[in-house]
Amino acid sequence: MSQPRSGAPSLSALREEVCEANRAIVSAGLVRLSFGNASGVDRSAGVMLIKPSGIDYDALRPADLVAVSLDDGRPIGSELRPSSDSPTHLALYRRFREIGGVVHTHSIEATAWAQAGRAIPALGTTHADHFYGPIPVTRQLTGAEIGGDYEVATGEVIIETLERAGYGPLDMPAVLVASHGPFTWGASASEAVENAIALEAVAAMATRSLLIDSAAAVLQAALLERHHARKHGPGAYYGQVAPPGRGNDG
Amino acid sequence: MSQPRSGAPSLSALREEVCEANRAIVSAGLVRLSFGNASGVDRSAGVMLIKPSGIDYDALRPADLVAVSLDDGRPIGSELRPSSDSPTHLALYRRFREIGGVVHTHSIEATAWAQAGRAIPALGTTHADHFYGPIPVTRQLTGAEIGGDYEVATGEVIIETLERAGYGPLDMPAVLVASHGPFTWGASASEAVENAIALEAVAAMATRSLLIDSAAAVLQAALLERHHARKHGPGAYYGQVAPPGRGNDG
Amino acid sequence: MSQPRSGAPSLSALREEVCEANRAIVSAGLVRLSFGNASGVDRSAGVMLIKPSGIDYDALRPADLVAVSLDDGRPIGSELRPSSDSPTHLALYRRFREIGGVVHTHSIEATAWAQAGRAIPALGTTHADHFYGPIPVTRQLTGAEIGGDYEVATGEVIIETLERAGYGPLDMPAVLVASHGPFTWGASASEAVENAIALEAVAAMATRSLLIDSAAAVLQAALLERHHARKHGPGAYYGQVAPPGRGNDG
Amino acid sequence: MSQPRSGAPSLSALREEVCEANRAIVSAGLVRLSFGNASGVDRSAGVMLIKPSGIDYDALRPADLVAVSLDDGRPIGSELRPSSDSPTHLALYRRFREIGGVVHTHSIEATAWAQAGRAIPALGTTHADHFYGPIPVTRQLTGAEIGGDYEVATGEVIIETLERAGYGPLDMPAVLVASHGPFTWGASASEAVENAIALEAVAAMATRSLLIDSAAAVLQAALLERHHARKHGPGAYYGQVAPPGRGNDG
Repeated sequence: MSQPRSGAPSLSALREEVCEANRAIVSAGLVRLSFGNASGVDRSAGVMLIKPSGIDYDALRPADLVAVSLDDGRPIGSELRPSSDSPTHLALYRRFREIGGVVHTHSIEATAWAQAGRAIPALGTTHADHFYGPIPVTRQLTGAEIGGDYEVATGEVIIETLERAGYGPLDMPAVLVASHGPFTWGASASEAVENAIALEAVAAMATRSLLIDSAAAVLQAALLERHHARKHGPGAYYGQVAPPGRGNDG
Repeated sequence: MSQPRSGAPSLSALREEVCEANRAIVSAGLVRLSFGNASGVDRSAGVMLIKPSGIDYDALRPADLVAVSLDDGRPIGSELRPSSDSPTHLALYRRFREIGGVVHTHSIEATAWAQAGRAIPALGTTHADHFYGPIPVTRQLTGAEIGGDYEVATGEVIIETLERAGYGPLDMPAVLVASHGPFTWGASASEAVENAIALEAVAAMATRSLLIDSAAAVLQAALLERHHARKHGPGAYYGQVAPPGRGNDG
Repeated sequence: MSQPRSGAPSLSALREEVCEANRAIVSAGLVRLSFGNASGVDRSAGVMLIKPSGIDYDALRPADLVAVSLDDGRPIGSELRPSSDSPTHLALYRRFREIGGVVHTHSIEATAWAQAGRAIPALGTTHADHFYGPIPVTRQLTGAEIGGDYEVATGEVIIETLERAGYGPLDMPAVLVASHGPFTWGASASEAVENAIALEAVAAMATRSLLIDSAAAVLQAALLERHHARKHGPGAYYGQVAPPGRGNDG
Repeated sequence: MSQPRSGAPSLSALREEVCEANRAIVSAGLVRLSFGNASGVDRSAGVMLIKPSGIDYDALRPADLVAVSLDDGRPIGSELRPSSDSPTHLALYRRFREIGGVVHTHSIEATAWAQAGRAIPALGTTHADHFYGPIPVTRQLTGAEIGGDYEVATGEVIIETLERAGYGPLDMPAVLVASHGPFTWGASASEAVENAIALEAVAAMATRSLLIDSAAAVLQAALLERHHARKHGPGAYYGQVAPPGRGNDG
């Protein structure tokens, strides 16, 4: 997750990056069993690369990733079936042109908030460094949405939630799907992984802060602005090149 | 845990699988000390293979597993004593013809629910992917049951609980024994392990969801149906072959 | 921790066992920094072997352990200073002739109960397999005890607490020192480690059970008796030889 | 972190120590992504060594550490940009002449207290061994402080908080910055790391103690004095040389 990025990677490099992203969500403790997947997009080639369904992360090789057409959602040149969540990933790539990677997990602490149906309040700078306000939770899906193209509807309710909250996708690279779990994204698959890791930490901290003091205060608006600007704004001064878009205090 | 299964394994292959299952519950963090055991059944041979009592998991070899007769519960051809929980495993195999493996642990998060005497409510899709409703908890055993064939009575109260709740054993592959801990099962020993891992995650999430919002809502019935059907129903579309019966979003 | 024990080990074997015990409390996650120590006793030689104060666990070799006289508490033939908790260990060995090892940690979950000044209620069979009732917490020390031979007074208040509760030391191999943390013991240093691991698990489960249901019920007296007897009683039927005195369901 | 220290290390040795300190906060589980940094000071050379901004911990070599002038805060002889938190570290070194190292993390349990805006009460001896009273939390920064030299203001509010509470920096080597996270320090970078580890443990214990009993009592003043004196006072008797200034019971 550390090499500098100049423009979009080749499809071959993207295979490496997406394979590594799928392994990283496991090694970061965000995934048990096969509760998670990462994808990346090559917009010039018109394809998304995503984990095949039901394949062990340990056995996953770059060549196993399934290429799916951004146009019609069909697998291209693979005998493996893509993750059953592929339509959700596709919906996000189609709507949000800025994003290059998507991650879905059922990580314990973030999923607990999704199951509670509660947005994660912005209680501190760890939150502000990655998420520009409370991390929203979707409404429940309707019976028709669940009974129809369920995974497409999941993507659409994420988009609806983000847009109603007025966020750009890189300002709020995460949404909690109610009764389900988190989706995160970023300019690349690596950044989507970093946002998934940050989300889990932020969720764990928020739960504990509220146990310590159920009236824990949201951080000051000025502090939210400052931390967002120092990493993401035009005058960003974090990292070795501006703006790197990852990490915070290091 | 990833090789495809075509029909029942040979007794030799079953020894490998059950040995691996006993190691897997340790490496997944479900077992401390010797608080747990896994078994598998070969119905054609009429035997259950189970961990010997009090043997370290690290030292366990396939040949150490004790074969126990499904008929009379006696060890066959082994000088080692089977796990003291063997009668509970046997009771489950005898009653539930669909199952091929059983796991018992004292994993922290699930045991906390067993000790609280509370069923784990179905709060999200992680739950729905494995468990088709709230995970039931048994009644307390009577004094006569505790004082008699205690381990047999433990098996019987699991069966009673499952049947009163109206579940088939593969629709609800887990029961919490009150004041004790979880038992899980599956079509194979590997699947029983996967259900034990899923149970621990689901228990951890539920505890946290209820801390965040003590009125956290059970997931919609339609969503429970959808997730169950997408993995376990006749139109299952998860994994590379249908229905694989494990994992969920990967 | 798995070799069978026939009589007392030689002093050389005890050095190995106590060194391993000090490493085991670290690898089991019970110790951060140098918050913990393990000791063992050779009653025929009249010495206790204990960790030297302030030495890293990684660097610890059997030869580094400090031999301390059971008679007068003085180090024998070592240039290293014994753990500052040595007088507490000595007090326990002198009073409880049945014990062969003592462990002290500041493990998170058990220490939380010690800091809360609350005994850990016996909520399940994990507890009953190791501890024959609620795990008691000491009274606070008096100002005179704190200002005098503090570590001796710590040992004495543990003894007072155990005896007032009416337990034999192998029936209740743990006491929580109020505002401090747990001490455990056993027939050997290995068993003291196992009891420290079991205590931490039991403490974690109890905290979570009470969060799930603040009225979680103590397990039935008959179940406490049954689990204690199946491992520790004259008719013990756990493990390969009776009574092995460790583990439970495996 | 274990070699004895005789006087100040050479700048070369300091590079090794500070590099190791940055790795140690990761391996101790205090840092996710790049949420943390460690520094050390060479007062005779007039420089602070600190982690470069946005560089992976795994890739960090002693030569990568950025030397920053204690006088004017400018990097010396490095093409890498120092951590964006450098001005906070500098402010602490300038004010507190006794300290040799500073650590900043967003560790989950301590940050939860910072986000709750609550000081961590001294509930037990683990706390007393490292922190001579409740661990204070800063006031919120003003809008002017956030909008101006924010990282300098962060250092100043830490100093203000410590001095208002009446602590010397080695008696209270930690402050929680409200809505942000912990800073710790010590006589060396290694000791700053040890205090960061102790802080995280103490924060985790305190949260759990208050969940068990919301009225958990602060430890007795005499016990706080005793534990502080046994490690830090003129009659310190912990460790192999007095006073070693780290660890407690080992």
